[in-house]
Amino acid sequence: VSRSFAVDTAVERIQQGSYAAAIAPGWDIGGNANGGYLLAIAARAIALETGRPDPVTITAHYLSPGRPGPLSAEVRAVKQGKRFGVATAALYCASQPVLQALGTFGDLGQAETGVQRIEAQPPDLPPADECVRHSVEHGAPAMYQGLDLRLHPEDAGFRHGEPSGELRVRGWFRFADAGSVDTLGLLLAVDAFPPTSFNARLPVAWTPTIELTTHVRARPVPGWLRATFSSRFVSGGFVEEDGEIWDASGRLVAQSRQLALLPLAVAEKS
Amino acid sequence: VSRSFAVDTAVERIQQGSYAAAIAPGWDIGGNANGGYLLAIAARAIALETGRPDPVTITAHYLSPGRPGPLSAEVRAVKQGKRFGVATAALYCASQPVLQALGTFGDLGQAETGVQRIEAQPPDLPPADECVRHSVEHGAPAMYQGLDLRLHPEDAGFRHGEPSGELRVRGWFRFADAGSVDTLGLLLAVDAFPPTSFNARLPVAWTPTIELTTHVRARPVPGWLRATFSSRFVSGGFVEEDGEIWDASGRLVAQSRQLALLPLAVAEKS
Repeated sequence: VSRSFAVDTAVERIQQGSYAAAIAPGWDIGGNANGGYLLAIAARAIALETGRPDPVTITAHYLSPGRPGPLSAEVRAVKQGKRFGVATAALYCASQPVLQALGTFGDLGQAETGVQRIEAQPPDLPPADECVRHSVEHGAPAMYQGLDLRLHPEDAGFRHGEPSGELRVRGWFRFADAGSVDTLGLLLAVDAFPPTSFNARLPVAWTPTIELTTHVRARPVPGWLRATFSSRFVSGGFVEEDGEIWDASGRLVAQSRQLALLPLAVAEKS
Repeated sequence: VSRSFAVDTAVERIQQGSYAAAIAPGWDIGGNANGGYLLAIAARAIALETGRPDPVTITAHYLSPGRPGPLSAEVRAVKQGKRFGVATAALYCASQPVLQALGTFGDLGQAETGVQRIEAQPPDLPPADECVRHSVEHGAPAMYQGLDLRLHPEDAGFRHGEPSGELRVRGWFRFADAGSVDTLGLLLAVDAFPPTSFNARLPVAWTPTIELTTHVRARPVPGWLRATFSSRFVSGGFVEEDGEIWDASGRLVAQSRQLALLPLAVAEKS
């Protein structure tokens, strides 16, 4: 497991339902902590509270930006069943609510195998060293210091003012320390790529996430993850973004969807 | 608005955060209330508590089957912002938790118009009277008494033992009384169609929903809704189901995804 990710998402149990954590510096985009990073902290607290290691499905609604410093997590188990535990979690920065989450957790090490039917393929990517590293040195936000993210060359043009025109971003994902990605790390991975709207020639300044839902379908094997994100509906000031993460064995390990706001750039709005 | 749906999902405010409701008879599948119907009740309580009429994005995790009788709803507003209110809701049947929900609500009558980019089409359906009515008289569960649901003939073969083989179900949706569908009604619509697995030649007995997330993208205009549901990933005992609902003006009004369990038929499992 990535040591920096494990340390930077650590939670400490204070008493039943109460956890202490911190937003570590370096997981931000322009000062605000990444939504997937915050969700991983909430999920770690739920995993401890329910005694179930894996988020089978988890949803976060984002309430206010998270900035580096202490966090508290309040977790409430709403059901402890034979196979799954369901819990809510709230993260607070001082007394400010940052995130509200709801998840069903289980043990994906014990998942039934059963019937398989997969009607999709992992994204077709050039080898990682022929992709474009989205690095801090080349203008990516601070968060990318902890990540090794390689964009498909066709989807990386937005970095130099030549967006592809497609609502799509594909690439490779791993931690910068090459530590393996566990099922909590997947919650970061689904929110770690630049937004699809950056490739869409829309006058978009930024796309704050309202809500992010992730289904974790399996524990990833060690190695690079392949990811693809796309959007089909830009309307009414909203955009959805659908993600798929595939592991090095070619298995779908996570499916995500988020709903984001589409604030238009001020200059273009008038 | 459909009178029976409005009456059967009514909630009464007892005090701040506490609502009384009931699971009305006739919204069940084999005795258990439909998940979308239950979610509509929870959403109505959230709408009252937050003073925001429309579920912009709402997620429910299902905890135990709901049977006809009194319900109580506990709602907690976690944020009241300028544009959106965020709240959790729990439904209880006696003291048994039935459903836990988390939603961001707003007013979609005031939605910004802004940039539009839609990379999809409503499903291509034969006219409603050339489709197959999924009615109680022809073996559909009790819930379909209140609905007028017409399946695409290509997707209706599972009704007589001839599933299409595709993980897909398309059709028309309205209430049996032809009352219009509001944004709470959409929460029923996204869970009202037979599961895609019925068309998949899988040895599946039933697919209990673990979690259902719906983005409501606009208020539907009056008239028939067009719906399409599909699944791409059957693995590890889980299946996702993606839905889109389009209104009579050709606008996408809701996008949904659920994660369901895939218990295999006992006879086939051995």
